[in-house]
Amino acid sequence: MKLYGHALSSASYRVRIALALKGLKVDTVLLDLRGGDQRLEHYLQVNSQGLVPALALDDGSVLTQSVAIIEYLDEVHPDPPLLPRIPAARARVRALAHSIACDVHPLNNLRVLQYLETELHQDKAARDTWYAHWIRLGFDALERRLSGEAATGRFCHGDAPTLADVCLVPQVANARRFAVDLTLHPRIVGIDAACREMPQFQNAAPDRQLPT
Amino acid sequence: MKLYGHALSSASYRVRIALALKGLKVDTVLLDLRGGDQRLEHYLQVNSQGLVPALALDDGSVLTQSVAIIEYLDEVHPDPPLLPRIPAARARVRALAHSIACDVHPLNNLRVLQYLETELHQDKAARDTWYAHWIRLGFDALERRLSGEAATGRFCHGDAPTLADVCLVPQVANARRFAVDLTLHPRIVGIDAACREMPQFQNAAPDRQLPT
Repeated sequence: MKLYGHALSSASYRVRIALALKGLKVDTVLLDLRGGDQRLEHYLQVNSQGLVPALALDDGSVLTQSVAIIEYLDEVHPDPPLLPRIPAARARVRALAHSIACDVHPLNNLRVLQYLETELHQDKAARDTWYAHWIRLGFDALERRLSGEAATGRFCHGDAPTLADVCLVPQVANARRFAVDLTLHPRIVGIDAACREMPQFQNAAPDRQLPT
Repeated sequence: MKLYGHALSSASYRVRIALALKGLKVDTVLLDLRGGDQRLEHYLQVNSQGLVPALALDDGSVLTQSVAIIEYLDEVHPDPPLLPRIPAARARVRALAHSIACDVHPLNNLRVLQYLETELHQDKAARDTWYAHWIRLGFDALERRLSGEAATGRFCHGDAPTLADVCLVPQVANARRFAVDLTLHPRIVGIDAACREMPQFQNAAPDRQLPT
């Protein structure tokens, strides 16, 4: 398998964590997103969306969309599971994951920040405010949910990492990179710390990715 | 079951379609989103994110995030299936769905349009350009994928609707509502038409929802 990604792309980071938790090794291709590699024709042949990550399987087919890729990995390599067994619990984990993957991360994607800058002429301060706004809004709700519901262990759901943690850690890394204050999110910070004690999360981190 | 939603919310619309395809009846609560119902404390007790939809189950638990809700419905009521059986095919359907649910819809959400207006002082023309931009970008890639890959039937994946169609139809409705030109997206328009021949899609449409 070959993973097309980017060190700082949090969607790529999610897939790296999932692969590591599953103990799967892949070849990695790091794209230069600021240089526009993802819009080159040969990459659009891989992923018509021009986004990372994409996972090329050994049969030549290509999977896209980080959460869909992780669900696939979980179905084909079920041990250790990244989703609980009970449907309502699976729905909870997916909802936590999607609250990041659908409602926070897409708003702070590189292409959106570029649109704010080039089309709407927003300066860096306005873009940083935008960035922090959507993280804070998302994390406020997530913190309320994670701390308000019955205690669910060291991770987002129980005592082993799930899809929710796989999405949370890269988003926390983004928050820190943009100096977003997390004082009011102690449960999120605690879960992030628990995850980052694990070598699978450590090895997937942006600063561990070698440049091409 | 009780569905908290909004007639024009495309995430709510997705869940209405899925429920109809499964033949499930639910009570419906329509929130006044422009009036801010979703930020009232009693609704935040239902969904701490203050977003629709939310599906309250008969045991009192609440599911959130439209795609997570639909995956749950598909697990608990597997017939007719909204995902294929084979993992790679499931990954394809999920990727198509997420390319809308993660990469188009969140950027055009009401709260984002409101932020553009009130915080970034963007006029209606700029907001409409923003809205159309993300749909066009998403639909260009989707059209390329749906028409470029091996012919896959009348719907996004084969000859029966899946999670991908459930996400596509509400997004096409949004595109039409904002007069986005779909001339270059004949495959998307064709799939949308095939879906809307089905009463389950028809009955879930925004104009069929009764006001509270």
